[in-house]
Amino acid sequence: MFYPEAVAVIGASSNPQKWGFGILHNLIQGGYKGRIFPINPSQKEILGIKCYPSVSSVPYKIDLAVIVVPPEKVFNCVIECGEKGVGSLVIITAGFAESGERYRKYQEDIAQEIKKYGMLAIGPNCQGIMCTQSNLFAQFVWLFPAPGKISIISQSGNVGASLIGRGIFYGIGFGKFISSGNEAVVKSSDLLEYLAEDQDTSVIMAYIEGVGEGEKFFKALSKTTPKKPVIILKGGTTDAGNKACASHTGVMAGQESIFSSACRQAGAILVDNLDDLFYASVTLAHQPLPKGDRVGILTWGGGWGVIAADSCVRQGLKVPPLPEDVIEKISHFLSYRWSHNNPVDLAASGGRDALSKALEVMIKSDAFDGIIQLGIGVSSFMRYIADSSFFFNSPDRAKLRKIMIEYAIKQDEEMSRKIIELSFENSKPVLCASDTASTPSPDNVAWQILKEKGMLIYPTPTHASKAFAWLVRYSEFLKKRANS
Amino acid sequence: MFYPEAVAVIGASSNPQKWGFGILHNLIQGGYKGRIFPINPSQKEILGIKCYPSVSSVPYKIDLAVIVVPPEKVFNCVIECGEKGVGSLVIITAGFAESGERYRKYQEDIAQEIKKYGMLAIGPNCQGIMCTQSNLFAQFVWLFPAPGKISIISQSGNVGASLIGRGIFYGIGFGKFISSGNEAVVKSSDLLEYLAEDQDTSVIMAYIEGVGEGEKFFKALSKTTPKKPVIILKGGTTDAGNKACASHTGVMAGQESIFSSACRQAGAILVDNLDDLFYASVTLAHQPLPKGDRVGILTWGGGWGVIAADSCVRQGLKVPPLPEDVIEKISHFLSYRWSHNNPVDLAASGGRDALSKALEVMIKSDAFDGIIQLGIGVSSFMRYIADSSFFFNSPDRAKLRKIMIEYAIKQDEEMSRKIIELSFENSKPVLCASDTASTPSPDNVAWQILKEKGMLIYPTPTHASKAFAWLVRYSEFLKKRANS
Repeated sequence: MFYPEAVAVIGASSNPQKWGFGILHNLIQGGYKGRIFPINPSQKEILGIKCYPSVSSVPYKIDLAVIVVPPEKVFNCVIECGEKGVGSLVIITAGFAESGERYRKYQEDIAQEIKKYGMLAIGPNCQGIMCTQSNLFAQFVWLFPAPGKISIISQSGNVGASLIGRGIFYGIGFGKFISSGNEAVVKSSDLLEYLAEDQDTSVIMAYIEGVGEGEKFFKALSKTTPKKPVIILKGGTTDAGNKACASHTGVMAGQESIFSSACRQAGAILVDNLDDLFYASVTLAHQPLPKGDRVGILTWGGGWGVIAADSCVRQGLKVPPLPEDVIEKISHFLSYRWSHNNPVDLAASGGRDALSKALEVMIKSDAFDGIIQLGIGVSSFMRYIADSSFFFNSPDRAKLRKIMIEYAIKQDEEMSRKIIELSFENSKPVLCASDTASTPSPDNVAWQILKEKGMLIYPTPTHASKAFAWLVRYSEFLKKRANS
Repeated sequence: MFYPEAVAVIGASSNPQKWGFGILHNLIQGGYKGRIFPINPSQKEILGIKCYPSVSSVPYKIDLAVIVVPPEKVFNCVIECGEKGVGSLVIITAGFAESGERYRKYQEDIAQEIKKYGMLAIGPNCQGIMCTQSNLFAQFVWLFPAPGKISIISQSGNVGASLIGRGIFYGIGFGKFISSGNEAVVKSSDLLEYLAEDQDTSVIMAYIEGVGEGEKFFKALSKTTPKKPVIILKGGTTDAGNKACASHTGVMAGQESIFSSACRQAGAILVDNLDDLFYASVTLAHQPLPKGDRVGILTWGGGWGVIAADSCVRQGLKVPPLPEDVIEKISHFLSYRWSHNNPVDLAASGGRDALSKALEVMIKSDAFDGIIQLGIGVSSFMRYIADSSFFFNSPDRAKLRKIMIEYAIKQDEEMSRKIIELSFENSKPVLCASDTASTPSPDNVAWQILKEKGMLIYPTPTHASKAFAWLVRYSEFLKKRANS
């Protein structure tokens, strides 16, 4: 399914407003290298590719067929694919179990035919699938992320798309994406089992509304979590949400308390909103696991340090006092006004490399299992100042302006590289938060360097503390497993 | 203090790396209309303004003096200001109570002198003050927000700066900002009392580490909350955070449980992170208060609707079923596949104005006290598609490309204007969330129109539900007060 040699788009359209156009377009745009067969009886050619009137008229083997015809035509279309010997289907078409009992029955009939022919099928009522390793973008949403270690299972296409969109915005890549829709044939549990073994996937993020056969799902989950982290956002945890699921993917969301305790028992990380789903997955995919829960906090500004300390403790982390030797070492290069305490608050003293020097002392100390670093990234703000200030904009200060911006860029570069280097050398996570650097931009040097390693700049200290806590939770889960 | 006719900067510097430069620069850059007196014995002129060797040598009355000399010089400087008859001081200089017992004593001595002369004083150890109504930017952080209804009290300069930076990013203005620092003379309670009466302030956001005289603070708070919402982020709610406060602003953060219950009793809205502080304040400043807690949810995509419903319920809000007449009216213009349920999920049917038509039906229904609308803003995404797609980039499709972008822009414009119009007409909040439109950009038409009214586009359904809950909580507080 993810590495097909030939793909048919049944219901391909030449009208750019139709999904049948979008899917064909995205297959081409994504750079898929295999054969593509648009199927449409009334067209000779779409987007420069020869069209066939039906699947059966294609004189080649078809590995994957994407179906995007009206719902009443799906049944015959499936039979035709079965007869042709197609390996896998992705049924985009909606109007099945989510539209009421009559349509649920129809969906079941189709599922039976698919199984009879021994085909795999994703959907119906889904957005498609994506595999960045094979340049396969068999989906109607126009999003083309770079390859990466995170794969997504989403029972909602728009939730999946919004996660991928975020990834693109922050420069985070993905591996596979499956918009599983109503899950008439292939279930989330099957997808989990597959992704557990997938070499290209190191973290699985999932949006789940309902799991049908619960036992199978939790069994698959328990087998996956010792190999790689699984982060789950459950939709339909309340009565109103549950009703919304019924008309969305036609599943019963089930009882929240049972689902969440089973998930936790199976070692999954449960979150309750999209931000957490994104941040937890990206963090677990790109940061080393800490050996314990002791956080060293390093900050340019006092208030952010206080907020970080509070929120670490609230997340169940420890913020231990500074050992004597750390205090002594840091005092060598900072003014007396630094905090002498964890958080290490530089109180804006110490020059360009004060942050990296303090970071090095802290990360090398046995007192800490990882660092939260607040206030990286000054160059984009410096450029903003230089561009808006009457002083720096005056022509006779062009040289000073240039020096200041270059100084800031150099500071960002050195600090970002040092963070990567120290984190890898010491196998400890360094989570950065900053308000000036959390939004990507061409001027944002720190973001540009850190994103190459998939390292985020979190927008607030609270985000960074939560992220640290997810790392600790997964690390503790693995330790417990190893000891049991 | 906020409307001075003349300001002195004591310790003004010609070195762009010094705070004494930044403050003078920012006063000028901000467009302050009164007289400015840089004070520095070794300079004749800084930034084109005549310098005086001392406050006493200035041949004019001084209303406000910003002090940015080294800590050991602050005492004499204060006396000189007192003798000169200066009205108010802002003491930027750090190195007082936050640096240990010896310096705390020094701070107390200075405070006593200030009171003896009957002056007001902000700080020490602060970032300055700002008043957009008088173009006064007596602060060392280079941020110049537009005028707006929200005023900020922050015991941390960097927390204040990060809130203002966010406001600028999203196009949200501010009224007054007071970085209150160690609060040696003017306390948060005094500032609350002042802002409670300030005509230009309709919402107060506060970052508080400690309140010293608790009774005075909660009394001021109780007097303020019936007039305008006060949103508080408390720093130092944990042991580690508390210790960090001591070395940050030299205050004792006090016991969390007492502070929070007293705040709630006084009618303040307590939050525990920067995101919530920002979103709660901006929402309360710019949205009408709902009469009850019943939310209508309107969405382009099913998954986002499910997440919104779950998170509304978790926030204590109601997501009531759709009344018959609403179902009937909406069915007139949507395909049978729409959800027939709250959330109203359009299932991507109904054409360009389907969202606004559904919004109108819902907001006019007595069943709902306000609306959460998901999925506004397609034009920036459409431009991204058009710019990156091989299809739309081909020269012979320039016209089609133009039509598609213009269609998307028109859709965003119409929808955004309709949201503003319907919200005002019906006095009900409409909170929008979108992943494609929550980040400001020149292409983002929805953001550009909504920000004129201070209306945010929240990044996720969870943010919108939380925001709705804050509106409900404040509305209920006012009702309770009116009935008691």
